[in-house]
Amino acid sequence: MRQTHPTPRPQRGLGGEQVEGRRAVRELLAAGRRRTREVWVAEGVEPAPLLDEIASLARRRRVPLRHVPRAQLEGAARTEAPQGVLAKADPLPEADLDQLCGPSGVVEPFLLVFDGVTDPRNLGALLRSGAAAGATGAVLPRHRAAHVTATVAKAAAGAIEHVPMAMVAGVPSALRTLAGRGVWTVGLDPQAPDSLFDLELADRAVALVLGAEGTGLSRLVRARCDLLVAIPQQGAVASLNVAAAGAVACFEVARRRA
Amino acid sequence: MRQTHPTPRPQRGLGGEQVEGRRAVRELLAAGRRRTREVWVAEGVEPAPLLDEIASLARRRRVPLRHVPRAQLEGAARTEAPQGVLAKADPLPEADLDQLCGPSGVVEPFLLVFDGVTDPRNLGALLRSGAAAGATGAVLPRHRAAHVTATVAKAAAGAIEHVPMAMVAGVPSALRTLAGRGVWTVGLDPQAPDSLFDLELADRAVALVLGAEGTGLSRLVRARCDLLVAIPQQGAVASLNVAAAGAVACFEVARRRA
Repeated sequence: MRQTHPTPRPQRGLGGEQVEGRRAVRELLAAGRRRTREVWVAEGVEPAPLLDEIASLARRRRVPLRHVPRAQLEGAARTEAPQGVLAKADPLPEADLDQLCGPSGVVEPFLLVFDGVTDPRNLGALLRSGAAAGATGAVLPRHRAAHVTATVAKAAAGAIEHVPMAMVAGVPSALRTLAGRGVWTVGLDPQAPDSLFDLELADRAVALVLGAEGTGLSRLVRARCDLLVAIPQQGAVASLNVAAAGAVACFEVARRRA
Repeated sequence: MRQTHPTPRPQRGLGGEQVEGRRAVRELLAAGRRRTREVWVAEGVEPAPLLDEIASLARRRRVPLRHVPRAQLEGAARTEAPQGVLAKADPLPEADLDQLCGPSGVVEPFLLVFDGVTDPRNLGALLRSGAAAGATGAVLPRHRAAHVTATVAKAAAGAIEHVPMAMVAGVPSALRTLAGRGVWTVGLDPQAPDSLFDLELADRAVALVLGAEGTGLSRLVRARCDLLVAIPQQGAVASLNVAAAGAVACFEVARRRA
């Protein structure tokens, strides 16, 4: 354990200050929802259209772009494969839960609620799938989930710039708030007797509640959901990975809304 | 490059000889489709129901189970997180493409064809989702795809023991074989005008063709598919991860068959 910093720096916000990977950095700059302080590109990296886009967006946004030795970039990187690009930005702005319950443009809310998803790759993948399916927001518990680390940001491939995220003290009370605002809460639970594919969703306001890998939804969260559904599965392998299950559920909502 | 082995050892088979992770090793032993030579469990690992299952399956199958120092296990491991368990087994048996085209029990074939999926985590995740959705087989190009490395095996969480896999010299000619055997080939292509959700599949024999990350299906494969479909997507982020897209497509097939 390094003890060189005398004051503890509790990470209580959403995070997202370090963004790595080409798609993630491109979306950070393209969305322009928060200030990017600088972009690093590794020296000697092979030219690629995405890198050109990043350079031109950085120019347009007046964000300094520094060419740094590859070793320096990899030393500063927090993901395995930063793809030669890294950006430092202001933290992600936190959305308000109430705000996520209102209609987003012309569509009813379609939220993802994370109940203890701790694997950053899964969290990032779920945000990416959610964004592609038209999710209008995400809800994360302040203490029982991965925050937006560089690994989450990279796996989300830019989705963190587009999906407003609210942090809540507890998921059970957030579910009560959602219910009070007319948002239908649907928990994904492999043991549920009802099938995801029998949901009568149409375009009503809905929140998909996704549990932790392995243990699934917590007991209280399971009790608070308006409905629990399972994805019908075949064969011997017990359960889908949460990122795959979440993708299937997100696009089932999208399909019903189309 | 290490040059200590005088004879080259081309990896031409499916692979799968090293299996790491608890679910993957449990399924290896439970399925019993191939011989497991030994199972290693790290000394001092915390007791867990899955480890008990592994020990009892190993006993029943008369597979030697060795307790080894954690450092030795991690030194031999080829994945980041072997979860204290590793098994050495015979290579996965190769299935024959023709055999995959026949009905599997009472259901028509439901195949996954990989056209250059090189990321082992994605390949493993796709096999896992496919197994859960009832896929009856998978087709991999011998040269243009990840084979079943320890990372693939771990991400597949046991699915490699249940989904028969055929290796083919080329995907385009395999598609011709499939068409000749009455298997409908459906390529997933973000640029396709038709929607996955408008497919009239019912329970006919079908092969989902999945392309490489980034570049997608190769030109010839795109031309050979009976149909190309896209998953309709929202918003700014360009394209779903191939593992998420594949999961959505697999469960769309499963839903239509139900």
